[in-house]
Amino acid sequence: MSKTFTREEVARHASENDLWVIIDTDVYDLSNFVDLHPGGAFPILELAGKDATTDFYGLHRQEVLVKYKRYKIGSIAGEKAQFSIPQPGELSKVPYAESSAFSGFKSPYYKESHFQFRTEVRKIMAELAEEFRELDQTDGKPSDELMQKLGETGLLACNVGPGPHLKGINIPAGVKPEEFDYFHEMIVHEEFARVVPRGVDDGVIGGFVIAIPTVLNFAKPHIREKHARDILLGKKRICLAITEPYTGSDVSRIRTTAKLSADGSHYIVNGVKKWITSGRYAQFFSTAVRTDKGLSMLLIERGEGVETKAIRTSYSPSAGTAYVTFDNVKVPVENLLGVENQGFKVVLSNFNHERLVMLMGASAAGRLAVEECLKWANQRKVFGKRLIDQPVIRNKLANMISQVEAFHNWLENLTFQMNHMNYAEQSEKLAGPIALAKYQATRMLHNVSDDACQIFGGRGITKTGMGRYVEMMQRTYKFSAILGGSEEIMADLGVRQAMKHFPKEARL
Amino acid sequence: MSKTFTREEVARHASENDLWVIIDTDVYDLSNFVDLHPGGAFPILELAGKDATTDFYGLHRQEVLVKYKRYKIGSIAGEKAQFSIPQPGELSKVPYAESSAFSGFKSPYYKESHFQFRTEVRKIMAELAEEFRELDQTDGKPSDELMQKLGETGLLACNVGPGPHLKGINIPAGVKPEEFDYFHEMIVHEEFARVVPRGVDDGVIGGFVIAIPTVLNFAKPHIREKHARDILLGKKRICLAITEPYTGSDVSRIRTTAKLSADGSHYIVNGVKKWITSGRYAQFFSTAVRTDKGLSMLLIERGEGVETKAIRTSYSPSAGTAYVTFDNVKVPVENLLGVENQGFKVVLSNFNHERLVMLMGASAAGRLAVEECLKWANQRKVFGKRLIDQPVIRNKLANMISQVEAFHNWLENLTFQMNHMNYAEQSEKLAGPIALAKYQATRMLHNVSDDACQIFGGRGITKTGMGRYVEMMQRTYKFSAILGGSEEIMADLGVRQAMKHFPKEARL
Amino acid sequence: MSKTFTREEVARHASENDLWVIIDTDVYDLSNFVDLHPGGAFPILELAGKDATTDFYGLHRQEVLVKYKRYKIGSIAGEKAQFSIPQPGELSKVPYAESSAFSGFKSPYYKESHFQFRTEVRKIMAELAEEFRELDQTDGKPSDELMQKLGETGLLACNVGPGPHLKGINIPAGVKPEEFDYFHEMIVHEEFARVVPRGVDDGVIGGFVIAIPTVLNFAKPHIREKHARDILLGKKRICLAITEPYTGSDVSRIRTTAKLSADGSHYIVNGVKKWITSGRYAQFFSTAVRTDKGLSMLLIERGEGVETKAIRTSYSPSAGTAYVTFDNVKVPVENLLGVENQGFKVVLSNFNHERLVMLMGASAAGRLAVEECLKWANQRKVFGKRLIDQPVIRNKLANMISQVEAFHNWLENLTFQMNHMNYAEQSEKLAGPIALAKYQATRMLHNVSDDACQIFGGRGITKTGMGRYVEMMQRTYKFSAILGGSEEIMADLGVRQAMKHFPKEARL
Amino acid sequence: MSKTFTREEVARHASENDLWVIIDTDVYDLSNFVDLHPGGAFPILELAGKDATTDFYGLHRQEVLVKYKRYKIGSIAGEKAQFSIPQPGELSKVPYAESSAFSGFKSPYYKESHFQFRTEVRKIMAELAEEFRELDQTDGKPSDELMQKLGETGLLACNVGPGPHLKGINIPAGVKPEEFDYFHEMIVHEEFARVVPRGVDDGVIGGFVIAIPTVLNFAKPHIREKHARDILLGKKRICLAITEPYTGSDVSRIRTTAKLSADGSHYIVNGVKKWITSGRYAQFFSTAVRTDKGLSMLLIERGEGVETKAIRTSYSPSAGTAYVTFDNVKVPVENLLGVENQGFKVVLSNFNHERLVMLMGASAAGRLAVEECLKWANQRKVFGKRLIDQPVIRNKLANMISQVEAFHNWLENLTFQMNHMNYAEQSEKLAGPIALAKYQATRMLHNVSDDACQIFGGRGITKTGMGRYVEMMQRTYKFSAILGGSEEIMADLGVRQAMKHFPKEARL
Repeated sequence: MSKTFTREEVARHASENDLWVIIDTDVYDLSNFVDLHPGGAFPILELAGKDATTDFYGLHRQEVLVKYKRYKIGSIAGEKAQFSIPQPGELSKVPYAESSAFSGFKSPYYKESHFQFRTEVRKIMAELAEEFRELDQTDGKPSDELMQKLGETGLLACNVGPGPHLKGINIPAGVKPEEFDYFHEMIVHEEFARVVPRGVDDGVIGGFVIAIPTVLNFAKPHIREKHARDILLGKKRICLAITEPYTGSDVSRIRTTAKLSADGSHYIVNGVKKWITSGRYAQFFSTAVRTDKGLSMLLIERGEGVETKAIRTSYSPSAGTAYVTFDNVKVPVENLLGVENQGFKVVLSNFNHERLVMLMGASAAGRLAVEECLKWANQRKVFGKRLIDQPVIRNKLANMISQVEAFHNWLENLTFQMNHMNYAEQSEKLAGPIALAKYQATRMLHNVSDDACQIFGGRGITKTGMGRYVEMMQRTYKFSAILGGSEEIMADLGVRQAMKHFPKEARL
Repeated sequence: MSKTFTREEVARHASENDLWVIIDTDVYDLSNFVDLHPGGAFPILELAGKDATTDFYGLHRQEVLVKYKRYKIGSIAGEKAQFSIPQPGELSKVPYAESSAFSGFKSPYYKESHFQFRTEVRKIMAELAEEFRELDQTDGKPSDELMQKLGETGLLACNVGPGPHLKGINIPAGVKPEEFDYFHEMIVHEEFARVVPRGVDDGVIGGFVIAIPTVLNFAKPHIREKHARDILLGKKRICLAITEPYTGSDVSRIRTTAKLSADGSHYIVNGVKKWITSGRYAQFFSTAVRTDKGLSMLLIERGEGVETKAIRTSYSPSAGTAYVTFDNVKVPVENLLGVENQGFKVVLSNFNHERLVMLMGASAAGRLAVEECLKWANQRKVFGKRLIDQPVIRNKLANMISQVEAFHNWLENLTFQMNHMNYAEQSEKLAGPIALAKYQATRMLHNVSDDACQIFGGRGITKTGMGRYVEMMQRTYKFSAILGGSEEIMADLGVRQAMKHFPKEARL
Repeated sequence: MSKTFTREEVARHASENDLWVIIDTDVYDLSNFVDLHPGGAFPILELAGKDATTDFYGLHRQEVLVKYKRYKIGSIAGEKAQFSIPQPGELSKVPYAESSAFSGFKSPYYKESHFQFRTEVRKIMAELAEEFRELDQTDGKPSDELMQKLGETGLLACNVGPGPHLKGINIPAGVKPEEFDYFHEMIVHEEFARVVPRGVDDGVIGGFVIAIPTVLNFAKPHIREKHARDILLGKKRICLAITEPYTGSDVSRIRTTAKLSADGSHYIVNGVKKWITSGRYAQFFSTAVRTDKGLSMLLIERGEGVETKAIRTSYSPSAGTAYVTFDNVKVPVENLLGVENQGFKVVLSNFNHERLVMLMGASAAGRLAVEECLKWANQRKVFGKRLIDQPVIRNKLANMISQVEAFHNWLENLTFQMNHMNYAEQSEKLAGPIALAKYQATRMLHNVSDDACQIFGGRGITKTGMGRYVEMMQRTYKFSAILGGSEEIMADLGVRQAMKHFPKEARL
Repeated sequence: MSKTFTREEVARHASENDLWVIIDTDVYDLSNFVDLHPGGAFPILELAGKDATTDFYGLHRQEVLVKYKRYKIGSIAGEKAQFSIPQPGELSKVPYAESSAFSGFKSPYYKESHFQFRTEVRKIMAELAEEFRELDQTDGKPSDELMQKLGETGLLACNVGPGPHLKGINIPAGVKPEEFDYFHEMIVHEEFARVVPRGVDDGVIGGFVIAIPTVLNFAKPHIREKHARDILLGKKRICLAITEPYTGSDVSRIRTTAKLSADGSHYIVNGVKKWITSGRYAQFFSTAVRTDKGLSMLLIERGEGVETKAIRTSYSPSAGTAYVTFDNVKVPVENLLGVENQGFKVVLSNFNHERLVMLMGASAAGRLAVEECLKWANQRKVFGKRLIDQPVIRNKLANMISQVEAFHNWLENLTFQMNHMNYAEQSEKLAGPIALAKYQATRMLHNVSDDACQIFGGRGITKTGMGRYVEMMQRTYKFSAILGGSEEIMADLGVRQAMKHFPKEARL
C-alpha cells in the first residue's frame, strides 16, 4: 500500500530543499518542514538523508510522529519496524503501566464490560489527546465543540459515576446505565488522567463533577429537567461556588448574601467567590449563600451582575479558576437547591464522591508517572548507558511502583465497597477510609513526583517535550493535596471517624 | 453462677491480709498475691477495698487478668461490665484491627471457609498465647510439647501453604487439603503474628517454613516419607543452613564441603554455617554444600560432628539463631536433596514463597501496631486528656493506618494471583511484584514502628507491660528488611524483573 | 505631620463616591480606588467608613499597603499602630526569619562589616522589590535599567563572590574589595532570595553568575578588559551555553562545532544549545564547542546567525530560558576562552562556586518559607483559632525550622572553609562536602516546601496574594535539585570524593 | 625488636597442634587458641600456615587483634603492614569520622585546649573500651573500679559540663576548671558515645548526669559537701527518680508521698518509681515526692525500705533501669533539695542541659555510624565488588553523612551560644532551639540508623562482631527520641517558644 524505498534512495535526498529522513523504518520528506521545525533547521539538516531514529527518540515523544504524519511518504523496503505507536484504545504493555487486572493478572473486580468500556473510552480520548495538550500549551479555554464531544460520547455523565442521571446517556461500549458501576467510573477518571493535563482536566471536568450533583439531587424537578441534560451533554457548563476570599473550608463564615425580594419571587445575591474551578467558563454557578437564617444553595445563571475574572495558579489557566463577583444578581426562588437555610446538607452531600474522584485521578497520575519513567529510563542514554542501567534510578522506580501499586489496590477495595453500599452506608462507613486514602494518595504523589522529576532531570522542569507530563505533575500534585480537604484535615477526619466506631469496651 | 458482692462489702476487705479490689465489675481477692506482685505491694495496698479499674488499665494489659483469673472471687451485684475481654477466636472490633473483609466489609477473596478457619486458628493460638509470651520473656526454647501441639492442630503444615503435604493433615475448621489456598495460609501467618513474638516465631516457624519445602520437593521419596511427616507434626525440627560467616546472600562463595566417600555411600561434610534460624533446636539441617562440581543440598541429621551455638541478635534467643559447625559429618548419599551439583535450583525454588510468608507476617505486624496504638491512645490519659485527643497523635495514626491498609490490599491481590497460577507462572510473573512488595512491606514497617514507638513513649522501649508488642516490633522489624533478600536487593530485583517484560517496541 | 481623624469622622465617608476605610490606625480614601480594586468593588463597599484591618490582613500582604500608599490620607488620632511595616534595611524580628547571627545570637563568622553590608543590600533590594515581583507576575524581561541599577550598586559583581573582579566596584556599605569574603557573598545571595522570585532571579543573576567567571578567568586580557566591566556593571548580559538537546550533563557528547576559518582568524560555529538560562537576553554566550581535537570554550557575541527562542519551564519566562541556534556564526579566534581543545577545564572550573551560590540561595529560600509560614500561621484564623494554635501545624513548623537551621549551620561552616582556602584547596577539599550539601539542600527544600504548601493551603497554589512566595517555591525548588548537578549525582560525587581520601590502612 | 619470619617459615606451622597464621604482616601462634575460637576450630584449621588477612578482616573487627595480641609472636620480615590499628588517642582519618574541626578543617570554636583534651579523653576511653564492651555483652553492672576510674580521671565531673563542681577536679590534658567550656563537654560526650554502648552509658553516666545537678545546685551546703564529691569521684552513685508507673512526663500526677514526722526531723516516704535509669546501682535517689502543699525533691539514700528491681528494656540491663519501691523510708529533712513544695523548679532546672547532653551523644552516635559504614562498605566484598562500589550504597552514605553534618553544625552553634550565656539567658533563649534540635537529632538518627542497618545487613541485627555498633544503635536510638522529652513534645515546645518571641506587630 504505502510506498517503499531503499536506504540508498533516501540518502539521495539530503539537501535543504530535498530533505528526507528515516525514523525507525518510516521515510519522511521534511523539505517543507525544515523551516517550521521548532528546534530550528540545523538539527534536521544534520540528518538529511540519514537514519534519524536515535536522534528523534532522544528528543521527541511519539505523539510528534502522530502530529506530523502528513510528512510520512513511505517506508524502507523489507525492514521490520523496531518501535510501534500504540493503536487507539490499545493497552500499554509496559509493566505497571496498567493496573493489574489490565496487565494480564486476574481480578475479581472487573467484568468483560469494564474491559470493553476502557478500550472504548481510551479510543475516544486518543482522538482528543492532541486538543487537550494544545489547550494546556496555549492556556486556552476548552472549546464548546470539545465539551459537546465529551457530552455526546457520554463521558461527561460517566464522570459523575453511577446513578439515574445516566438514563438516556449513550455510554461507551454500550454499557447499560443500570450496570454502570464505580469501577466503570474509575476507568473514566483513569483514562482522563492519562490524557488530560491536570489544569485542563479541572477546566473540563473538575468544576462540573462537583457541581452537577447539586442539581441532580437537589434542584426542583423542572429546573433539573431544564438544565441537567444540557450540562451533562456539554451544551452548558456549571461550577461550584462555595469558597470566598475570607474563608476557605470554613463554610460557616460565608458572606455572600441572598435576600428575598419583597414579592418573594427571587433572591438578590451579593458577594464574591474565590478559587472557583472552571468558573470562568460556567453558565451556572451552584452557589453557597447566606439567607435569612442560615446557609442556602442557589443555582445562579450567568447574567447581569455576574462577573468572573481569572485567578493565576500553579496550573493551567485552562482550569478557568475564577474570582466571581455577584452584584445584585436576581435569582428566581425556584433555583433554590434543596431547602432554604439547609444548604449545609447540599454542600456536604457530595464530599465522599468528590474525594473518590480525586483518588481515582491521583492513582492514575502516579501510575502514568511510572510508565513515563520506565519508558524514559529505558530509552534515555547518559554516558553510554541507559538510565535504567543505573542502580539508583532502579531504586527510585521500585519506590514509585510500590507506592502506586499499594495505593491502587486499596482504592480498588474502596471502589468495590462503594458498589455494595447505598448512599447512607457509604456516608457512614466509607467517609473515614476515603479520607485516609485521600491523605495517602497525595503523600504517594509527593514521593512519586519527586522521584519522577529527578529521573527526567532538566526535562522534568520543562513544560514541553519529553518530560511534559512529569513537569505538569510536579507543578500540580499539590492541588490534590489541598482541594477537597487538605491532607491534614483528611488524616484527622479519618482517625476521628475510626474513633466513632471504636468499641468502648475494648482495652489493651 | 459466680458470687456477687456489693461495693461496700468489698470495701471491708482493705487490710494487707484481707485485701480485695474491684476491677471493672469483678472482685479479686489479692490477699495472697500482694507480695507476689511484680510491681511491689505498695501500689496494691493503696487500692485495698477500692475500685482499681483505672489504675489497673493504666498499667496492665488484659492478659494479666487472664493470667491471674484464679484470684477472681466474684463480681459486683447489679452492675454491667464496662470492659470486655475478647473470647478466644473472637474478632477485634477496633477499627482497622482486622483486615477489611474481617471488619464487616465485603470482599471477593474470602469464602465462608476462610472465616471459620480464622476463628479456629485464633482459638488455638489464644490457648498458646501465654506460653509464647513466656518464651519471649524468658528467652526459652520452644518446648517439644508446644511444637507437637502446633503439629497436631495442623498449624505447622498450614504455615507451608497449599500443597500435597497437607494430605492427611488435620486442618483447623475442617478445611479440606484441596480447598486450602493461599488466603488460608495468609490467615495462619496473620494469626501467628498476632500472638507470637517475632523471635519466638522464627524459632518455631521461621526455620521450618523455609527448610521443609526442600524435603517435600527434593528429597528422595523414601527419605521424604521417613522424615517429612514427623517434621510437619512437630515431632522433629528442621532448619535451612545456607549462609556462612564469609558469605551472606552470595551463595556462590559457600565453603562448606561435602566429599563423597571412597565407597560412594556417604558424603563427609566439613564447614560452618552462620545465622541459621532455629538451628539450635533442629534435628535436621537442609544444608548447602560444595560438592565435586558445584553446589549441592544435603539433608543432614544432627549427630556426631554437628555442633550448634547461639548467636546473639536483636531479637529473642528463642529464635534459636545458630552458628553451626560440621566436623567430618557423615551423611548418607540418599540424603541428597535434588540433583548433585544442582543445589542452586533447590535454594532458589522457595524464594517466592519465603518472601510471601514474610509479607503476610509484616502486614499483620503493622496492623497489630495499629490496634495496639488505637487502644493505647484511647485509654492512656496525659495531662487530663486521652492521647487520641491530641491532633499530632491522630496524625501519626492516620499515617500508620493508611500505610497498613494500602500495603495489605496489594498483598491480597498478590495472594489472589498465587491462587490462580501454577508454580512456573508464579516464578515467571510474581517474582518481581513479590520482591517490590517485600521492599514496600519493610518501608511500611519502618514508618509504622516509628510512629507506634512514639505513641507508646517509654512503654515503647520497655520489654514488658503495655508496650511489649511495640517494643518488640521496633527491635525486630529490621529482620524482615534484611532476611530473605534485603530491601535494596528486593527493589532492584523488582525493577529488573519488570524490565525483562518491558516491550522493546515501546517508546515515550 | 500627617493629618489625624477620629473614627467617627471616617465613618461619615461611607458611600461609593466618598469611601474611607481604616487599616490599623491609618486612614485611606479609596473613593477613586474602589473600581480599580482587583477583587472588585463589593468587598470594599462593605467596609466603607469602617475598620478594615482584619479584612485587609486576612487577604493582603503588607506590600499592598506600600504599593498603594498614595491613598493614605492620615491616621486615627491618639491611637497607636498595632502593626508595623518593616523599614527598608530592617531585620525581621520573627524568630528564625534571619540566620542566628542576625537574630541576636553570637557568631564567630561575621564582623561588623557583614552587618552593615546586609543592611545596605537589603535597602537596595527593598527599592527594587516591587519591580522584581512585577516582572514575575507579568513574565517580563528584566529591563536594562534594572540590570544597570544592579550593576551600579555593585550587586552584580558581589554575586560573583570575592576576587579581583571587585576592584573598582562600588560595594555596598563601603566594603573594600579585599575584605569582601564569602560571607558577604552569602549575604547577597540571601538578600536576593528574599526579594527576587526564583525565575526572575535566574534571568537576572542565574546565567550571569555561572558565565562571567569564564571571562574573568579565561578570556584573553584585552577581551576581558573590553567586556567584563560592562557585564559586571549590567550594561551587557552574558549566559553560559553548554547543554544541548541531545545531551544534558554529559559534556562529552556536545555536537556544536567550531571550525577554524582558512585564514585562522575566526571560528565558524554551528549547532544548537538548549536550556540556556537567561539566554534570551544575553549579548554574550560563553559557549562550549567541539573544535579540532576536543572541547573548547568560545565567547560568542550575539549577531548574525545567533537566534534565541523561549523554552517554557515550570518557572517564570523572566528567566529567559532559551533554545539557542548558531548558524554559521563567525567568532574571532581571540574570543577563545582558555586553551583550544582544553575547554573541559573551563567548564569544570566554576562548579564549586556555582553550587555554593545555589546552596546559599536554597538556604535563604527555606528560611523565608519559615518566616512566611510563621507569619501566616499567626495571622490566619480558621474556625475561630489561629493556624498556629493547631498542634499539627506547629509540628510542621518544627520540622521546617529544624531542617533549615541544621542546613544553614553546615553551610556557614563550608563558607568559612571557602574563606580560608585558595582555589586549589577548595577544589581538593570542598568539592565533596559542597556536593553533599547541595544534595541535602534540595532534600531540605523538598520537605520544607511540602509543609509550607500545606500550611498555606489554597493560597499555596495561587500565584498572587498571600501565598505567592510559597506557591513559587513549590513550583521551582526542583530547579535547584536538578541544575548544577542533580541530587543523585551530587550524592554520588560526595561519597566518591570521600573515598578518594579514605585511608587505605583503615579497617573496622 | 619483635621477631621476624618468612612466609615459608610460617607455612611450616600448619597442623592442629602447631598452628600459625599471618594477619597482614603479623604472625600469630594459634596452637592454643584454636579450641577457644568462638567460631570453632574449623575456620582456623583451614588457614593454618597461611595468610588469614582477608578472612580475618571479613569476619572480625580490629579490636579482636587487640584483645588477643598475646598470641602474636612476630612479623613477616621485610614487609610493610597494609593495615594499621589506631593508636590510643589517635584521630580517625576516615572522612567524616571526626567533626570538621578535627578532620583538618578550620573552626573558630575550638582552641588548642580542646584538641589536647580530646586526645587525652580518647586515650583514657581506649583503655576502658574492652571493659565497656564486655559489660554490654554480659549485661553486667558497671564495676566500682570502673566508676572510680571515671571519677579519678575527671571524666564523671566533665560529663556535667562547666561549673563550680569542677573545682579540684583533675581534668584531662590539664584543662583548668575555669576554662572548661561546653565544647570540652561536647568532646567528653562524643568520646563516650564512640566507646560506650548506649545502655552501658546510661548505667554509667545517664542517671548520674541528670541527678547530680540537683545536689550541686539545690542541696544544703553541708549535704552537698558531704556527698557531691564522692559522687563526682565515682565512689557513690546517684540517680534521678521522678517518673512513676502511673505517670510519665506529667509530673503533676506524682503519687509518691513524703510526710513530715511528728518531730519534724524527717520525712516518711512511700511510693514507687519506674524507669529509673541506673537506679539499680544507685546509693542516692534524687526523688520527686508529694509533700504537704506541692511537689518537693528529696535526696534519698539507699537503706531500709528502699528496694530496686530491674526493668527489661530494649537496651542493655547494664543501664540499671529500675523499678524503685520506697516503703516507709525515713529521710532526714536536711536532705530536702531546694525549697519544700517548690520541687518543680528543681525538676525543670536541668532540662536544657540534659537535652544538650543527649544532643551531643546523638550527634556522635550518628557520626560513628558513618565511620562504621564507610569502613564496612570499603572492606566488605559481595559478588566480587566492594559494597562501596554499589551506587545505592553510596546514595545511602550520602544521606547519612549529610544529615550528620548538618545536624552537628547546628549543635556547634548551640554549644557556642551556651558558652556565651548565663543560666537565665540559656533558659530564655535556648530552650526553644535546643528542643527543636533534640527533635531533629532523633529524626536524623531514625534515618541514619535505617541506612546503616541496611548497609550492614545480617550483621546489623547481630549483637556481636562487625555490626555490633549498628545493631546497638538501631535497637536503642528510640531512647533518645523518647527520654528527656519526646520528639512530639520537643517539636511543640520549640515552636511555642518561638511564638513567645513572635513580634505582635509583624504581618505578612
